Amino acid sequence: MENLNGKPTNTWFNSSETAGKVITCRAAVVYGPGEPFVVEQVRVDPPQKMEVRIKILFTSICHTDLSAWQGENEAQRAYPRILGHEASGIVESVGEGVRDMKEGDHVVPIFNGECGDCIYCKREKTNMCERSGVNPFKTVMVSDGKSRFSTLKDGKPICHFLNTSTFSEYTVLESACVVKVDPAAPLKKMTLLSCGVSTGVGAAWNTADVKAGSSVAIFGLGAVGLAVAEGARSRGASKIIGVDVNPNKFIKGRAMGITDTINPRDQEKPVHEIIREMAGGGVDYSFECAGNLDVIREAFLSSHEGWGLTVVLGIHPTPRMLPLHPMELFAGRSIIASVFGGFKGKTQLPHFAQQCMKGVVNLDEFITHELPFEKINDAFQLLVDGISLRCLLHL
Amino acid sequence: MENLNGKPTNTWFNSSETAGKVITCRAAVVYGPGEPFVVEQVRVDPPQKMEVRIKILFTSICHTDLSAWQGENEAQRAYPRILGHEASGIVESVGEGVRDMKEGDHVVPIFNGECGDCIYCKREKTNMCERSGVNPFKTVMVSDGKSRFSTLKDGKPICHFLNTSTFSEYTVLESACVVKVDPAAPLKKMTLLSCGVSTGVGAAWNTADVKAGSSVAIFGLGAVGLAVAEGARSRGASKIIGVDVNPNKFIKGRAMGITDTINPRDQEKPVHEIIREMAGGGVDYSFECAGNLDVIREAFLSSHEGWGLTVVLGIHPTPRMLPLHPMELFAGRSIIASVFGGFKGKTQLPHFAQQCMKGVVNLDEFITHELPFEKINDAFQLLVDGISLRCLLHL
Ligand SMILES: [Zn+2]
Ligand SMILES: [Zn+2]
Ligand SMILES: [Zn+2]
Ligand SMILES: [Zn+2]
Repeated sequence: MENLNGKPTNTWFNSSETAGKVITCRAAVVYGPGEPFVVEQVRVDPPQKMEVRIKILFTSICHTDLSAWQGENEAQRAYPRILGHEASGIVESVGEGVRDMKEGDHVVPIFNGECGDCIYCKREKTNMCERSGVNPFKTVMVSDGKSRFSTLKDGKPICHFLNTSTFSEYTVLESACVVKVDPAAPLKKMTLLSCGVSTGVGAAWNTADVKAGSSVAIFGLGAVGLAVAEGARSRGASKIIGVDVNPNKFIKGRAMGITDTINPRDQEKPVHEIIREMAGGGVDYSFECAGNLDVIREAFLSSHEGWGLTVVLGIHPTPRMLPLHPMELFAGRSIIASVFGGFKGKTQLPHFAQQCMKGVVNLDEFITHELPFEKINDAFQLLVDGISLRCLLHL
Repeated sequence: MENLNGKPTNTWFNSSETAGKVITCRAAVVYGPGEPFVVEQVRVDPPQKMEVRIKILFTSICHTDLSAWQGENEAQRAYPRILGHEASGIVESVGEGVRDMKEGDHVVPIFNGECGDCIYCKREKTNMCERSGVNPFKTVMVSDGKSRFSTLKDGKPICHFLNTSTFSEYTVLESACVVKVDPAAPLKKMTLLSCGVSTGVGAAWNTADVKAGSSVAIFGLGAVGLAVAEGARSRGASKIIGVDVNPNKFIKGRAMGITDTINPRDQEKPVHEIIREMAGGGVDYSFECAGNLDVIREAFLSSHEGWGLTVVLGIHPTPRMLPLHPMELFAGRSIIASVFGGFKGKTQLPHFAQQCMKGVVNLDEFITHELPFEKINDAFQLLVDGISLRCLLHL
C-alpha cells in the first residue's frame, strides 16, 4: 500500500466478510423520467482508492430527488440510475488510503463533499469543492470514471447520483462525501443532517449569520424552510414570518419557531408590502425556499433597505434571469445563494450533529412518515402531494 | 433659541457680515436638458435651522452632473437648477442648532448626508440616511420644502441638486451634508473627497474590504475606477486589472496601481475568459464603474467561483433587469452595490481626509485640468470627450 505522506503507514484492513467483494443487494432503480422506481437486485463493487462502501440504514426523499426523478433538467437525464442523497448508515469497508473511517463507523453521506485539498476546501468562507462538490451531471466515480453499480439481470452499469445514490442497501462514495458521526447519536435523526436540515439551519447560521433579536421571513415551508425557521429560532430571532400557499404548513411551522404566517392567496397586497408593515420597514433576512423567481423578487423586496439580505435556497430550472434591476442594489439590499447551508461537511457536520443532540436544534418535527424501503413509490407520492416533510425509508 | 437637549445652550452667533442676510452671487444655472450653463447672479437665502451656508472655493464635475445636465432620467428634469456636488469651501454662516461647525471652517459637501439620528445612521454597516441620504429627485430643503436659491432677474426659485448644488459661489446645505476637514489640508485636493475618490476608494476599502495579496478587476477607468485602483493598491492587492475601451486611460491607470490592462476591442474572447486566465480562475473582487449591464455580467463572471464579489458603482438608467441567472448565484459569486464608497460621511470622512494627507491614498493624479468658474461649459465638454478625469473650477 502506498504511503502518501512519507510517514509510517497504518495497517489498512477491513474485517467484514464482504470487504473486497462485490455485494449483491436491493436498490430502487429509475429507468426513465417519472417512471416508477423498480426495487431490484443490483451489484455493488468494492470501494476503490479513497472510496467508502456503506450500508444504508435509513434514507429519505428531498425535492432534488423529485426533480431528478421527473427529469426536469434534460442534461440530468441519465438512466438507469440510483437516486437518493439524504441518508445514514454504517461503513461496510473502505478503499485504499481512507484513514478517517473504518468498518462499523456511523456515517452520513453528503452530496457536497469536502476533499480537503482543493483551493475551495483550503479557503475559509466557501464550502465548494473542486473534486467532490455537488454536481448533478456526475454519474460515475472520479477516480476511474466508472460506476460501482450494475444491474444483476444484465450487468449494465447504473448511474450514480449526487455523489451519494442512497436508494440502495449498499452504496459507494468518495470518502470526501462521507461524514463520521458520534455512534451515540440516533442514526435515524442523523439522516436529516445529510441534506435538508443542514441546508436550512446552515443557511440561517452560516450564510445569513442570523443575529438574536432580528427579523426573518421564510418563503416556502417545506423541510428546508422549516429548518431555516429552526435555525433562526435557535439564534434568537424575535420575528420569524412564514409564507406559504398551503396553510397546513403553518401548524408545523408554529411548532418550529414561526411567529407570524402569511398565505399570499388570502392577500390582496403583495406579500412584501405586508412584511414591511409587520417588520418595521422590512425583515433583516429573507429566505427563498420555493424555487420560484417571482418569489425571489418578493423575498428581496421584503428585506429592509440598507442591510436586508436575501438567501436563495430554491432550485430554479427556469431560463428566466433574476427579476432585479441593477439600481435596486443601490438601496443596500443584497442577495446570495446557499449550498448545503454553507457547511463544510467533513469538518463541520460532526459538531453540528452534537449541537442537534444537545437540543440546540430540534430534529423531532421533521420526520413525519416512515415506510419500508419497498414502498419508495408511495413515499415519493407523499412528497409530491405536500403531505410529508420527510418520509424515512427503512432499509 | 430652542434648547433641544435640555442642556445649557451654547451661544449661537455668526460674526460674518453676511450672516442672516440674502447673498447675491454668481452661479451656473441650467434651464433645460443639455442646454449650456448660464453663469448669472442669483440670490442665496440664509441657512435655516440645522442648515449651513458655505462659500464654494472649488468645484469639479462628475458623471452624475453630466447625466443630470443631459436630463437622462425624465423624473430628474427640474429647471431652473443649480447642479454640482463635488466641491470644497468655507462656512459662511450656520443656521440655528448647528453646533459642529462655525464660520470659517473648511468643509466638503456630501451628496449622501448623515443625519446621525435615523435607523440607518444608527446602524453600523450602512451609509444610507433616511433624512439626508442621496436623492436625485429632491429639489428643495427638507425643513420647509423651499429652495434657498432664486434668480436675481425675476426672483423665481431655482431647484437644488443632490443635497449640494455646488455650481454657485454660495450654497445652502443641511448640516448633515457638510463635513468639516482639517484646515491644514489643501482644500483643492479635498474637493476630490466630496464624491469620486471617496466613492472609488471606499468601494475597495469599505464595501469590498479588499485584502492584501488579492486580485482585482476594474471595468471602466474614469475617476471612480482609478480611485478603486488606488484603494486596492493601498490595501496591498497584488494584481489590479484595468478594463477600458479607451487605451489612453491605461497610461494614467498604470501610474495609479493598475498592473494589467485589457481593451475589450482588441480581444476576440470575452473579457471574463481573459481575466480568469490571468488571475488563476478569476479575481477576488471585480468593480463595475461603466454603467453598462453587459459589463456587469462580464464583471460578475470575471470573479472567482466560491468567493468572488462584484461591486456595482455605475449608474444604470436602462429598463433592463440584471443579466444574471438565479442558479449562477449557487457558484458562490455575489454582487452588491456601493454608494459613496460605503462611507458614513460626517463620521468617517475626516479620518479618510487625514489618510489622504498622509499619502495612504495618492490624490495627485486625479485633477487633470483647472479652469475659472465661468468656463464651466468647456469643463463639461472635457468630461464628455473623455479627456479630463477631474477638471477643477475655481470660484
Ligand atoms: Zn436534498
Ligand atoms: Zn475540495
Ligand atoms: Zn459624483
Ligand atoms: Zn440619517
